[in-house]
Amino acid sequence: MEGTLSGTIGSRDITPDELRLAARNHGLPLEALREPITPAGLHYLLIHYDIPAVSPEAFRLEVGGAVERPLSLSLDDLGARERVSMPVTFECAGNGRALLAPRPLSQPWLTEAVGTAVWTGTALRPLLEEAGVQATAVEALFTGLDSGVEGGIFQAFERALPLAEAEGAFLAYEMNGAPLPPQHGFPLRLIVPGWYGMTNVKWLARITLLEEPFQGFQQRVAYRFYSEDGEPGEPVTRMMPRSLMVPPGVPDFLTRRRHLQPGPVTLRGRAWSGWAQIAAVTVSTDGGASFAEAELEEPVGEAAWRGWSFEWDAPEGEHVLCSRATDAAGNTQPLDPPWNLKGYANNALERVPVIVGRP
Amino acid sequence: MEGTLSGTIGSRDITPDELRLAARNHGLPLEALREPITPAGLHYLLIHYDIPAVSPEAFRLEVGGAVERPLSLSLDDLGARERVSMPVTFECAGNGRALLAPRPLSQPWLTEAVGTAVWTGTALRPLLEEAGVQATAVEALFTGLDSGVEGGIFQAFERALPLAEAEGAFLAYEMNGAPLPPQHGFPLRLIVPGWYGMTNVKWLARITLLEEPFQGFQQRVAYRFYSEDGEPGEPVTRMMPRSLMVPPGVPDFLTRRRHLQPGPVTLRGRAWSGWAQIAAVTVSTDGGASFAEAELEEPVGEAAWRGWSFEWDAPEGEHVLCSRATDAAGNTQPLDPPWNLKGYANNALERVPVIVGRP
Repeated sequence: MEGTLSGTIGSRDITPDELRLAARNHGLPLEALREPITPAGLHYLLIHYDIPAVSPEAFRLEVGGAVERPLSLSLDDLGARERVSMPVTFECAGNGRALLAPRPLSQPWLTEAVGTAVWTGTALRPLLEEAGVQATAVEALFTGLDSGVEGGIFQAFERALPLAEAEGAFLAYEMNGAPLPPQHGFPLRLIVPGWYGMTNVKWLARITLLEEPFQGFQQRVAYRFYSEDGEPGEPVTRMMPRSLMVPPGVPDFLTRRRHLQPGPVTLRGRAWSGWAQIAAVTVSTDGGASFAEAELEEPVGEAAWRGWSFEWDAPEGEHVLCSRATDAAGNTQPLDPPWNLKGYANNALERVPVIVGRP
Repeated sequence: MEGTLSGTIGSRDITPDELRLAARNHGLPLEALREPITPAGLHYLLIHYDIPAVSPEAFRLEVGGAVERPLSLSLDDLGARERVSMPVTFECAGNGRALLAPRPLSQPWLTEAVGTAVWTGTALRPLLEEAGVQATAVEALFTGLDSGVEGGIFQAFERALPLAEAEGAFLAYEMNGAPLPPQHGFPLRLIVPGWYGMTNVKWLARITLLEEPFQGFQQRVAYRFYSEDGEPGEPVTRMMPRSLMVPPGVPDFLTRRRHLQPGPVTLRGRAWSGWAQIAAVTVSTDGGASFAEAELEEPVGEAAWRGWSFEWDAPEGEHVLCSRATDAAGNTQPLDPPWNLKGYANNALERVPVIVGRP
């Protein structure tokens, strides 16, 4: 009963390493789902190494590798280019990891590693055209200024994208109308709408056009779906659909269990997918036994979440609320967690236990 | 060895409730100790219930109870009053809790629940004088707009201060030169320099002058030092001295263990106390077996932390670094955790394991 009501974690044995990660990285406080645009300090954060200290005056973005004309751009150079601005929903690829059993050891996310910000910067494609990408190039590699040890390897954080996937990407220097905060990549980061968070390389300092697919750690070891060790694995790419609910009522401090009054209540939440627009959200007030359609709001943006609402006449007693997103490509959230070795993309239904009663 | 090097947590058995709290509340990423003033999104956060949504237009601060002239003040009224502004270091009273054995169940902080911001607002004392505090009043009660269930009791978050302790307090509507972010109490919070974080009531909406000491949950049950259940306990008040280090070198992603090169390195950190100015910081590079004096910088402010530095010629091998703060009132950090039932004010030495070697 305790497990059912409070949402189980895959194992009770959270290690000191996981706790250390959880003390520094953080999710979206779920009540902040009421905001279409997440304030910077409430947006989820996953920082692999340390937040680097970057001098904006000394900063240069270098574009090199398989290009005709390598570029070296200051922040002023980037700011003088054509501006693009759009709300984009980000989610950590490890969101839901702590709900898997057995639980892969890494950042122990429950369901709240998400956020939507308005990112402003300049498009990647014209910049690559200016550099003159050679016909032999197949991928663009994005390298950040953050470095550390992972899997026993000293590395800067870097990830590559096939050139076709880089089409809609842009380089952001503002978040919600202000310069990027240090923890979100000051002074520059990559934005790839629809992809999981690791793609959006922070503290971006170098773009290298590659003639062979990138073989680095974050591409060939991490961020792949494995069912067991030793497999080549499949890359983690776009966000699977997920819906989360603004938790109704008020919380208990320790358990975060919700208490609410009997009677009519409007349940609200937001849903997103990196594959297509959200086409439907259904809501269950009986722990997933039955579902009914929620009303959809207009999406916050082409690459951002979509609000929903559902009228519920809450009867006294204990209930488990769920919401379930389906996108226009036909992807829908599973009822049970889809397990994989590293714990990526667990988009199983969120379960929100509530106690309805007069105090 | 694992325990010694990585810093033990009091028990390996972190519960789902604790993980849920850790996913939402967060500490200061320790590299941010390099900044004298913590950017808002990096400052630690402990939110008892939910972040309330507050309309700044409708907001009023009510001052009532044992006063001659109850007040009802808009944000414009507050903004028109004389401004005070100062950097203040805040620390959660539960900082260090997860390092206690046995570990009290609540937010499982390691050592990083701290931050320093420049808070701007208006002094409390002239406002109370305007309201005309009656001679019978003994305490001021501060009530926030956030509410929830704690210890089985539905409550708004509220804490009281004896009038003499309210002398240096002020009401802040800006953090680091911008309106308070939602998670730091928008639009108004109390600031009581030197006291643990729970004192600085967020989303402050009402000040009530009381003729008897406040008996509410956050004063009489929570935030007290107990050695066992059923005792009256002693109130948690001002911050005990603590020093933290900017972790040198680079981290391992999973363990956060630090790697650095052999040779000279300047260790840096910050120390604070709510009782008096920091008078000395000593540093150990041998796990606390011996200590030497660090060099102190000027304090960031009268109620803010003080930077320190220490030159170390790092030899190859594994080492545990510590720093230890002593204040001008003679309080110093203990080597071993001071246990109490609810896990408050554990200011035992931080232990920073490092691996010095050529990669």
